[in-house]
Amino acid sequence: MPTPMQQLREIEKQLFAYHYALTAISYDDATVAPPESSEGRGEAMAVLSAAQHRLMTESGLPELLAAARAGALTEQEAAEVRELQRSYDELSKLPAEEYAAFSKLTSTAQNVWVKARANNDYASFAPYLKQIVDTRRRWAGYLSPEKAPYDHWLNEYERGASTEMLDEFFDALQAKIVPLLARIQKEGKAIRTDFLHQDWPLAQQAELARRVMRRMQVDPAHCAMGESAHPFTTEFYKGDVRITTHYDPQDMTSSLYSVVHESGHALYELHTADRLKYTVLASGASMGVHESQSRFYENYLGRSLPFLRSLWPDLVELFPTQLAGVRCEELYAAVNRAEPSLIRTEADELTYSLHILLRYRLEKQLMAGELTVEELPGAWNALMKDLLGVTVPSDAEGCLQDIHWSMGDIGYFPSYALGSAYGAQMLRRMKRELDLDGLLEAGDFGPINAWLEERIWQYGTEKEPGWLVENACGEPFDPACFAEYLEEKYTALYGLG
Amino acid sequence: MPTPMQQLREIEKQLFAYHYALTAISYDDATVAPPESSEGRGEAMAVLSAAQHRLMTESGLPELLAAARAGALTEQEAAEVRELQRSYDELSKLPAEEYAAFSKLTSTAQNVWVKARANNDYASFAPYLKQIVDTRRRWAGYLSPEKAPYDHWLNEYERGASTEMLDEFFDALQAKIVPLLARIQKEGKAIRTDFLHQDWPLAQQAELARRVMRRMQVDPAHCAMGESAHPFTTEFYKGDVRITTHYDPQDMTSSLYSVVHESGHALYELHTADRLKYTVLASGASMGVHESQSRFYENYLGRSLPFLRSLWPDLVELFPTQLAGVRCEELYAAVNRAEPSLIRTEADELTYSLHILLRYRLEKQLMAGELTVEELPGAWNALMKDLLGVTVPSDAEGCLQDIHWSMGDIGYFPSYALGSAYGAQMLRRMKRELDLDGLLEAGDFGPINAWLEERIWQYGTEKEPGWLVENACGEPFDPACFAEYLEEKYTALYGLG
Repeated sequence: MPTPMQQLREIEKQLFAYHYALTAISYDDATVAPPESSEGRGEAMAVLSAAQHRLMTESGLPELLAAARAGALTEQEAAEVRELQRSYDELSKLPAEEYAAFSKLTSTAQNVWVKARANNDYASFAPYLKQIVDTRRRWAGYLSPEKAPYDHWLNEYERGASTEMLDEFFDALQAKIVPLLARIQKEGKAIRTDFLHQDWPLAQQAELARRVMRRMQVDPAHCAMGESAHPFTTEFYKGDVRITTHYDPQDMTSSLYSVVHESGHALYELHTADRLKYTVLASGASMGVHESQSRFYENYLGRSLPFLRSLWPDLVELFPTQLAGVRCEELYAAVNRAEPSLIRTEADELTYSLHILLRYRLEKQLMAGELTVEELPGAWNALMKDLLGVTVPSDAEGCLQDIHWSMGDIGYFPSYALGSAYGAQMLRRMKRELDLDGLLEAGDFGPINAWLEERIWQYGTEKEPGWLVENACGEPFDPACFAEYLEEKYTALYGLG
Repeated sequence: MPTPMQQLREIEKQLFAYHYALTAISYDDATVAPPESSEGRGEAMAVLSAAQHRLMTESGLPELLAAARAGALTEQEAAEVRELQRSYDELSKLPAEEYAAFSKLTSTAQNVWVKARANNDYASFAPYLKQIVDTRRRWAGYLSPEKAPYDHWLNEYERGASTEMLDEFFDALQAKIVPLLARIQKEGKAIRTDFLHQDWPLAQQAELARRVMRRMQVDPAHCAMGESAHPFTTEFYKGDVRITTHYDPQDMTSSLYSVVHESGHALYELHTADRLKYTVLASGASMGVHESQSRFYENYLGRSLPFLRSLWPDLVELFPTQLAGVRCEELYAAVNRAEPSLIRTEADELTYSLHILLRYRLEKQLMAGELTVEELPGAWNALMKDLLGVTVPSDAEGCLQDIHWSMGDIGYFPSYALGSAYGAQMLRRMKRELDLDGLLEAGDFGPINAWLEERIWQYGTEKEPGWLVENACGEPFDPACFAEYLEEKYTALYGLG
């Protein structure tokens, strides 16, 4: 007779298989599936998702978890039990018919959102958003009756996050960044960007992507690159991770930095410990911790001068005419320039966090019932003016720009900023322990990867985000660190006194 | 309460979903998965296959099928019941432990075969082949005790096929082809092939592939092309079919004819009737009928002079230097030339069927116990000499060349030849009803596709191969037709009196 833990492992292996199938199908969909093939894919995914759901709800999970907890558990086993229990509780506390209805609602809402954005028609999307907000508020009551609804969802997307923590974090950010941005616009030295927009041949861009992945030591035996409309990373399992890129023929930095970003995600998944394979702990700890890694590589390493210096011979070899008369320092300044803009996904490193701050404030008010869905566009536009100094010309470029809310994801945005913040704090620590600039200039990612593997990657979901940050940084999360990092970097870049 | 037929449909939908998942995973594996990612894929596929198996054996299928049969069934429903019953019977008549053991045996045998072929070491493979032959003989006893073992397996791979039918077919073929080949070698006029082997740029080969698919009216909204080591077609469902090709930089006809061949398979799957979607009848009727379509497009249409004439302007546009000084008639002759060779997959249209004839005779003797596994290489080499006049220099180029036997597929080869034969008979009928040469010369595949859709494609697995052949040809299978077709074509091509 297998032990309860052995039976749980068997269920985890089966969950892995359904996850694998759904991942393979989604990856195929995003990369190579023919355009009008969604119907059968939807039918197949519905059956597989239902089977996965039954596996969670009809395998006697609560009894097995209780029996496992009654015995002696290793640290890893206890973490498996913890994660399975969380997933089970969530499924069992939500009425099945509400779950199905919400699935249908968000599926419709996404279609409505696509059209609303295209037609700049917020009014058509508002009723759906209202239903989504109402459902999320109600579900928070089912799942965490002791918490404010927004606190429940923050913690759902990033274990340990709360409005208390994020208020402090975003307030510190606002206090530093808003005046810094004003100074840059008033006193900052000019940055040359003319050379960015020209013809960058796709074959050379693809070769650059391959060389960057090799330099970052992303193992090609276990990680392949595809193309999709929006770049992403997906893990089949630790032995098979995929990243995608999207080539902009007029701007090679677009694909370059998406490859560095996605490779950061990929390195994390490729280096979770073997012992976690096929368990519910097998992949990265959270959205925030994952973004801390991707942004670490993209912004803290990839946009640094030493990294660009080491890449410069490749860049000049691949793009000799495009980079004729350009200095490496000019490229460095160009890929780091800061300017207020309307669209989050196109924002630079400095202003990006203000876009997130805005969404955090609005989500918090929406979930507290202090802001109605009708009032949202006005509040959005006013806050854009306050924080970034820009006038929003249309809702399409304002509160309709992101897909997240239409998918039901409220409380997800802050983890992007938390990722940058975790990363900045890891950078501070790493610089004390490694000659980071020297390694980057030599193109040697070995010690950098090993540092992150030892402190973060190996643990998968076994440890919680707060533990991982403290383990990597030698101190608890410091909400001020990221703002300090930005201030130091941008003061130097723009030659502010 | 759902009716038995409704419950069966629900099971069929679930079987579809597992088929879809396994197809997506296999397609990914063959096209874009990173090289060392097979471990997790194997784990996931084992879980999904087991779930699919349980669905067949633990869903009360025999009771549902009996209940469905007790009511009034439409023709389609009766066919669904027939196919489900066949699959169930097969699974239930085979002891589960023998099934698992055979799965393990063939998995090992494939690995052993790869090494045996590489090292020209038949002795290392022979014990595995012996076990495979023994198992297949024993299983034939479980499944069709009333039949000779080889007759069981022929009928398994191609419903309706038997040694009686195939003896007549292959005897007719041998009587015509062996002397014809001798006359070609002795008296046939020379065919120019010098221009085939040069540099054919891959980008232009890919563009040619796209144009050929468009001309054949393969709908790009529902059919995408990928690259793999060996070309194949796979259907996710009728709304999503994939073909692959493999580019030979030194021979553009390799990819050209694989694209035409696989597009023939794809057209069949893309045009099964909507009413069959998500049922067990949704895809092509059999291996033989499928090959009849792919070979129809590849050999009867694609290698015809009118088709090449209509493609000629594209060929000259894409390959101006490569085809300078070449006439279309010379390309036609070159892609149809016949010469005895050692390897089946590289054989021309005329000699290909002799390679199959050889395998048929040897399999028949093996399964009847008239030939031992030890005697196989000698028998192979002697028959190659008799039929093709070639001396086999090594088992690697002889009886070790094909993967099929190592996978347990004995009785599968004849369906390749049956496909050509069905197709030749369809061609004879189509030529009476359509101005085929005129349509090909005009590049108009519309009426050709419509003819095959009406008579073959729409029926999926609802009808059996024999019915489909008779429906398309207006007469039962004619074992002499293919040999007559070859004789006529090659007599003209080689200017034989």
